Amino acid sequence: MANTSAASYPMIGGDGPYSYAHNSSFQRTAVESAQALINEGISENLDVKQLIFSSPSSPNSFSIADLGCSVGLNTLIAVQNIIESVKFKCLADDLCSEAVEFQVFFNDHVSNDFNTLFKSLPCDGQYFAAAVPGSFHGRLFPKASLHFAHSSYSLQWLSRVPKELLDKESPAWNKGRIFYIGAPSEVFEAYSDQFAKDMESFLNSRAQELVNGGLMALIIPCYPVGIPPSQCPMIVIIALLEATLMDMVNMGLVSEDKVDSFNLPKYYPTPQELRSLIDRYGCFSIKKMKPLVRNRGPVNESKIQDPILPLRTALEGPIKRHFGSKIIDELFDRYKKKFLESPIFSQVNKNQVQEMFVLLKHRVA
Amino acid sequence: MANTSAASYPMIGGDGPYSYAHNSSFQRTAVESAQALINEGISENLDVKQLIFSSPSSPNSFSIADLGCSVGLNTLIAVQNIIESVKFKCLADDLCSEAVEFQVFFNDHVSNDFNTLFKSLPCDGQYFAAAVPGSFHGRLFPKASLHFAHSSYSLQWLSRVPKELLDKESPAWNKGRIFYIGAPSEVFEAYSDQFAKDMESFLNSRAQELVNGGLMALIIPCYPVGIPPSQCPMIVIIALLEATLMDMVNMGLVSEDKVDSFNLPKYYPTPQELRSLIDRYGCFSIKKMKPLVRNRGPVNESKIQDPILPLRTALEGPIKRHFGSKIIDELFDRYKKKFLESPIFSQVNKNQVQEMFVLLKHRVA
Repeated sequence: MANTSAASYPMIGGDGPYSYAHNSSFQRTAVESAQALINEGISENLDVKQLIFSSPSSPNSFSIADLGCSVGLNTLIAVQNIIESVKFKCLADDLCSEAVEFQVFFNDHVSNDFNTLFKSLPCDGQYFAAAVPGSFHGRLFPKASLHFAHSSYSLQWLSRVPKELLDKESPAWNKGRIFYIGAPSEVFEAYSDQFAKDMESFLNSRAQELVNGGLMALIIPCYPVGIPPSQCPMIVIIALLEATLMDMVNMGLVSEDKVDSFNLPKYYPTPQELRSLIDRYGCFSIKKMKPLVRNRGPVNESKIQDPILPLRTALEGPIKRHFGSKIIDELFDRYKKKFLESPIFSQVNKNQVQEMFVLLKHRVA
Repeated sequence: MANTSAASYPMIGGDGPYSYAHNSSFQRTAVESAQALINEGISENLDVKQLIFSSPSSPNSFSIADLGCSVGLNTLIAVQNIIESVKFKCLADDLCSEAVEFQVFFNDHVSNDFNTLFKSLPCDGQYFAAAVPGSFHGRLFPKASLHFAHSSYSLQWLSRVPKELLDKESPAWNKGRIFYIGAPSEVFEAYSDQFAKDMESFLNSRAQELVNGGLMALIIPCYPVGIPPSQCPMIVIIALLEATLMDMVNMGLVSEDKVDSFNLPKYYPTPQELRSLIDRYGCFSIKKMKPLVRNRGPVNESKIQDPILPLRTALEGPIKRHFGSKIIDELFDRYKKKFLESPIFSQVNKNQVQEMFVLLKHRVA
């Protein structure tokens, strides 16, 4: 019943130099920084007695889904943390945590490298693992079958590029750009509308799949209000990529049409926008919503051998699909050069990434 | 919580010339021939009202596991048939089959090619798919979380080679052979004991995972009582492989030690032996146990371009692991020659494969 119509932009699989498994330390510190918030959220909001110990049909089992899990350590760390928090909550409520059986569903697009993910699973018998292929903008699980859903650094990817961006007759035609920064308001609105639709389909599916009282933890990179785009690293990264592509157009290495018809399917909502979309949907109450404070502070690029690798891992998928694999190496070589030469990045205040942690509780109307 | 200590002999993944996806028509006709039996078994033995429509925590959901699913069409056909049979049973009992949500767990070893399996899933939204990696000789699912388990042509693979076969001091040392045919009784007993242990661990895990009243359908190739080994195709196939390896030893292409230390981890019980193991375990009642009658009759080898391909697909895994990949092509070239030259195969009555269909119902003591 997976919604297969949504576009898929999986991170690079396997364990090669460009793989997500080896280039996701930025996302990992986000997951690690969320640990205390998840722990606190479970402690304050999860009725373990009701959800785990009073279910007649599935005795003492607790099911967790990581939506947009990709491969590598990040999803394993997130899941481990949720399990430990639930066990801790059981102990705090004088319930036997040993009796709880955990089932963990790792979800990502069909094209995700689940074979590699399975090989990295721990053998400590803490949980029963399963993989669920498909877009989380559609239904993935039977009704009322999940107790906890988690999704980190996934919802900023749109399920599709808004089609008006490709329509030469539309005021939202995004000629000469690959994103909404510096674009007419119609382009921005097309992106923003698509994000709103995606959030609704995401929340709607989870509202059906989560048990009443079930929790959902989301980590979503947001656009901090009041900061100019040139001070926001997420935006600067994309602006540099856009400039690199335009250089290649000017050198005749890439056709202008190709760039005109490419739009990065990503959107960074403001925290206020995110809250309002969740409130509007109505099936979830916001139990916690705050910016993540990274445990290790901003990423120190001097420690990273090649600062382009994580960006390449995240962006290569949709670029390759559109431009073909031939230009990829040259594009990222040029991108790297631009990135290292440009003073813009060293001027950016890296703390201006507002990663929102949101904890939602499902309430049946 | 998957038992990772069991050895893994997955079929060949991907969709290349030796892949299970392309070389499993023999197993497919078994699955297809079992359809009517599964349909009848569900109709007579599944209390859909109780299992699906009276569960307060998982409303109207029905979960199915295919254990040892491999890749390719066979598992999809088997699952589809179970779903249709359950829907038919709902209709027959005046219950709304439309309201039922199916969740299907595809299980095989961690090294199975789940990426390829996921790409072959139907997009018709009939069920929520999930993959579960791990040995089915251990626990794979939470307690009482499955309604129907299916396993076809998997249980004849042993979880490990009995260690006494490799012990030069043991009367069960299996020198110069790769199987138990023509071997001392101690060798046969070591194989038979391992099969009994494997059946017990398999049944024990499923007894915990299936709901009370849940069903399990097994297709297991058996050794027909009263037939000489030379008349049994499953045995002849292995005897020819053994002879090919011994030829290669005599030609100095493979070391004798290597063959002495290799034993094919397969066992064909008699139907009586199978029944007695299930009865002894006690948590399942045998609702149906009969030889499969293949819909299309025995495989017509004139239709198969290369009769060795399906055998190679099934046997290559453990051989490659033991002998390395260097000898594989030559071994199977020689095997094919022997196979085509030998009069033995044309003399074999191919109907002498006794594939037992067993339908079990879980009863909580």
